[in-house]
Amino acid sequence: MTAEIITIGDEILIGQTIDTNSAWLGQKLNALGVDVNRITSIHDEEGEIIKALDEAAGRSDLILMTGGLGPTRDDITKNTLAKYFDDHLVIVPEVLEGIEEYFTSTGRPMLEVNRQQAALPSRCRVIINHRGTASGMWFERNGKVFVSMPGVPYEMKGLMEDEILALIQQRFPGSPILHRTIMTQGVGESFLADLIADWETQLRLDGLTLAYLPSPGIVKLRITAKGFEEQHAGRLIDEKLTQFMELAGRFVFGFDDQPLEYVVGELLRKRGKHLAIAESCTGGAIGARMVSIAGSSDYFLGGAVAYSYGMKEDMLEVSHEDLVTHGAVSGIIAEQMAVGMRKKSGADFAIATTGIAGPGGGTPDKPVGTVWIAVASAAGVKSRCFRFRQNRSRNIELTAHSALFMLYREIIDTDV
Amino acid sequence: MTAEIITIGDEILIGQTIDTNSAWLGQKLNALGVDVNRITSIHDEEGEIIKALDEAAGRSDLILMTGGLGPTRDDITKNTLAKYFDDHLVIVPEVLEGIEEYFTSTGRPMLEVNRQQAALPSRCRVIINHRGTASGMWFERNGKVFVSMPGVPYEMKGLMEDEILALIQQRFPGSPILHRTIMTQGVGESFLADLIADWETQLRLDGLTLAYLPSPGIVKLRITAKGFEEQHAGRLIDEKLTQFMELAGRFVFGFDDQPLEYVVGELLRKRGKHLAIAESCTGGAIGARMVSIAGSSDYFLGGAVAYSYGMKEDMLEVSHEDLVTHGAVSGIIAEQMAVGMRKKSGADFAIATTGIAGPGGGTPDKPVGTVWIAVASAAGVKSRCFRFRQNRSRNIELTAHSALFMLYREIIDTDV
Repeated sequence: MTAEIITIGDEILIGQTIDTNSAWLGQKLNALGVDVNRITSIHDEEGEIIKALDEAAGRSDLILMTGGLGPTRDDITKNTLAKYFDDHLVIVPEVLEGIEEYFTSTGRPMLEVNRQQAALPSRCRVIINHRGTASGMWFERNGKVFVSMPGVPYEMKGLMEDEILALIQQRFPGSPILHRTIMTQGVGESFLADLIADWETQLRLDGLTLAYLPSPGIVKLRITAKGFEEQHAGRLIDEKLTQFMELAGRFVFGFDDQPLEYVVGELLRKRGKHLAIAESCTGGAIGARMVSIAGSSDYFLGGAVAYSYGMKEDMLEVSHEDLVTHGAVSGIIAEQMAVGMRKKSGADFAIATTGIAGPGGGTPDKPVGTVWIAVASAAGVKSRCFRFRQNRSRNIELTAHSALFMLYREIIDTDV
Repeated sequence: MTAEIITIGDEILIGQTIDTNSAWLGQKLNALGVDVNRITSIHDEEGEIIKALDEAAGRSDLILMTGGLGPTRDDITKNTLAKYFDDHLVIVPEVLEGIEEYFTSTGRPMLEVNRQQAALPSRCRVIINHRGTASGMWFERNGKVFVSMPGVPYEMKGLMEDEILALIQQRFPGSPILHRTIMTQGVGESFLADLIADWETQLRLDGLTLAYLPSPGIVKLRITAKGFEEQHAGRLIDEKLTQFMELAGRFVFGFDDQPLEYVVGELLRKRGKHLAIAESCTGGAIGARMVSIAGSSDYFLGGAVAYSYGMKEDMLEVSHEDLVTHGAVSGIIAEQMAVGMRKKSGADFAIATTGIAGPGGGTPDKPVGTVWIAVASAAGVKSRCFRFRQNRSRNIELTAHSALFMLYREIIDTDV
């Protein structure tokens, strides 16, 4: 069985909003063995919605819609759905109560438009929204299922997890699609493909598929098993992974979209070690990545965002003379930042970044994108210069990423 | 004239990759007066690609494709396009030279699959890729234009800005679509709608459109003018904005998707003031937002990521006794962090965050989502407790956002 996702709303088409809902829905449906074969974004217009529904129902069994359910007058999805299913709207008392409670608890005045959010098609199955005022709606016709949800990601995810995923699983029992992703770094996509060519050929002969997914500094490889019995698929993929590690294990740093901050955090946790970070050009981006992982307080102590000269001197005991002589973007300063941070915090490992993110601040000697990263540990301190030469946000992202990689290598290399 | 965007690749459908390309393309096309009326994501399969191209060409004049052009064997778009346009591949010497140079400069070995990236449909217009090895391709048939680009955002954007946007403008001259967005906070969507109901009615009578775009902590209002002569549209929108400010200006903090970190930064810059930040539960996320703005070193000094007790005491001179008595998540500690940070850095303003992001660490007294934020300035220090009660990443996001808002109000309120 196959599914489609339709997102409704001009904000996606004009590029004001990035559609993150579809990716989340795609992951969840895949885990249930439901293959998403199309995602469509359309305008918030009756004709467009009806056309898209007709097309999707012609191809797929399950159609999930997000968006177009707000109380304001630019949202017309609900009336269109009532029309599409030859239905009419009725006030649903349970929904109305929930909306009234919502406004009471937030202390905001409730208006007629909010009351109207309790008016829903009479024959749909209403999915109660405990996080907002727009309900979900589940329709069935000619064996096809249509589900409409609000576009606010937090509310949509709540409806799916509370009720809709279970309803889908009940309605369309199937064998799950298994994915495993291998995370590699330090190797180009085509070089890697060449290295594992025979393995890949055999993998395809065994009925699995492989995809290469490059992203900044990383090549991910995704293995997919579809149509297998679950246990068999798991065993088959494990076997392939073992073979892959023999061929190219030196490039692998993790699996299944584990972000580097998670991998590094687990290395620290297992060893009972602590980390502190001194950030200049990254401004806190590395700390924010560490803290994004639940439980990171077990191994992450914190750090300093030493953006100005003064902060580098006061918080990290960087030498004023060296700052003046070598400039803030230099190996010696990066090393002093890391060593100062390690000393100040008592951490086992400290990393430091200093660089020119751009677009201003570059010189012929140190063009935009020049970055020094240092790692300090019990084994001493080392630093490395990078020249990313990209735009500001990408220079910052690549710096954060490279710093975490240097740390990753240092933890593994100093592991005796 | 209308356009469509087709993204090719399983990674989007299974939810492994969020499609950020389409939003970027939507913005750029809109600015040229090109209305994007559909975005479609499909599998990397010949039949799917051909079907999607046929459908799109039946509706629109310009079809932009991204993805499916890598060197590895899961990418089949190029051959499908050659087939679709009854063409065949030929090696393009200029492209081959570029690929050879790319491998020489990065020091990686060049393989046959890389050489094959220089094989392109003989009759397409080749768009040279200066940032990678997959070329862009421009096809025309029956008055419709089809453009294929690699899926890596950095490369796709490069191709668009180097050449394709200019070609589109030349091929489809039109009147631009103007958007202005008003950023509001501290007001619910429906309350705001009620407040501005008459203004909105008149706006629609004048031929403009309005959309409400809620996101965490913010309601954005987007005014759109389409089909007007450019100068007239600008004047009309300006007039509407002036009226809006009279009605609801107290809720407005910015325009046109200016992020709060930009708005705050400009307030500081204009006043010649400096900011430092002491982050606990946000772990650097606020600093990272400040630093994401080019030129932020003019007003942002840096800060401390004081995640552990020890870091709070050592770097911010927070009282050990108060930490033990009141806990790290308390008003008194938030205030000490902000005051300590301000003193340590010499900044005019300092903000501090401390809270329980979750999922662990909550108590009946201080459940997950309990956050204290403090702002210190020459006028003294104030703190406020928030209870976000959401998941970890959203609690962190809302904390960062609320801290910047408290700072925004403090800068404006202390402005004498």
